[in-house]
Amino acid sequence: MELHFINDEIEKMEKRYCVAFINSLSGFKSLNIIGTKAKNGQTNAAIFNSVFHLGADPALMGFIMRPDTVQRDTLLNIEQTNYYTVNHVNSSIYANAHQTSARYPSNISEFDTENLTPIYKNNFWAPFVKESHINIALCLQDIISIPINNTKLVVGEIIEVYVPEGVLLEDGTIDLELSDTIGGSSLNGYHNTQLIKRLPYALPKSN
Amino acid sequence: MELHFINDEIEKMEKRYCVAFINSLSGFKSLNIIGTKAKNGQTNAAIFNSVFHLGADPALMGFIMRPDTVQRDTLLNIEQTNYYTVNHVNSSIYANAHQTSARYPSNISEFDTENLTPIYKNNFWAPFVKESHINIALCLQDIISIPINNTKLVVGEIIEVYVPEGVLLEDGTIDLELSDTIGGSSLNGYHNTQLIKRLPYALPKSN
Repeated sequence: MELHFINDEIEKMEKRYCVAFINSLSGFKSLNIIGTKAKNGQTNAAIFNSVFHLGADPALMGFIMRPDTVQRDTLLNIEQTNYYTVNHVNSSIYANAHQTSARYPSNISEFDTENLTPIYKNNFWAPFVKESHINIALCLQDIISIPINNTKLVVGEIIEVYVPEGVLLEDGTIDLELSDTIGGSSLNGYHNTQLIKRLPYALPKSN
Repeated sequence: MELHFINDEIEKMEKRYCVAFINSLSGFKSLNIIGTKAKNGQTNAAIFNSVFHLGADPALMGFIMRPDTVQRDTLLNIEQTNYYTVNHVNSSIYANAHQTSARYPSNISEFDTENLTPIYKNNFWAPFVKESHINIALCLQDIISIPINNTKLVVGEIIEVYVPEGVLLEDGTIDLELSDTIGGSSLNGYHNTQLIKRLPYALPKSN
């Protein structure tokens, strides 16, 4: 049997039920901690499940900022300083990463509250998460408004990448399972993965 | 040991190596087949790894269109008709789904070449993928330009959802493992998942 929901029914769902349901629909999600530092030196760490690939040349990543979340400090710090880090969530720190979504005051660093270690590399302004195995340094390029629901797409250029030796495959792919990167679902699911297969570049079948 | 790459080194990577590397950096990805139908009735199916949650009220999803891909038919059909479907990739159809990324002419339907079955439900214009277990009907709301690399963010409102009975949890979350939805990595990785844990809504710790 198949369940069928139309938009009127979705709109009438209890609010938290609806949020969990709609958040499930896109499929699996990336899980990253974004690290920032305000001009006054205050650090911030926040989990995001909306970081996505935007292009390889130039090397760009995007993520979505909601207007109403605790992650506002992230956006304020990026706007103020232009720099931020993206750090993969792995199976050792997923609970700490999840807890960064709690509503702490701006003068409290989630690095402190969640026992994550800010680490500075190569004089980059923003802190990386030491416990994360894949660290990326980005420079803000654009903040694009999405008028329909007052969200913002934050676009950054990848300027430095740190990966553990041994996870980089011959063709340039990073083996995310070897780096212990995990995936997310809806608002609260944390998942290990198992490779089914890597497939070659698809060419049209000949008849 | 840690490998460190700066942007100058990334820019000098061999092109396909660079594409695989940069595509790995965001983490795990959703995998969906977008189904469309042109005004003349020609159907199209294309795999996307950039579909993401954009908001629950209104219920919105976004995906990224590159200017230079075979998926252009998808955008043309959406612009022409306003309607499209998002269908989760599962472990039975991942190879078919992958193959939809091959460069077929516009007058050939990937539903035919890849043995995917277009199915029409509730008089919705665009075809769903019958073999997919989670089907979503969307109505175009906005196409937002991302000037830095000439990509586009396509924003759609979720107007109908089909899910198998038994995958919907008490709190509204869809159990993506029960629905056999799989995740992606870089350009070519297909992954099953195993739930580590679902965590409750995060509240600040008291001292």
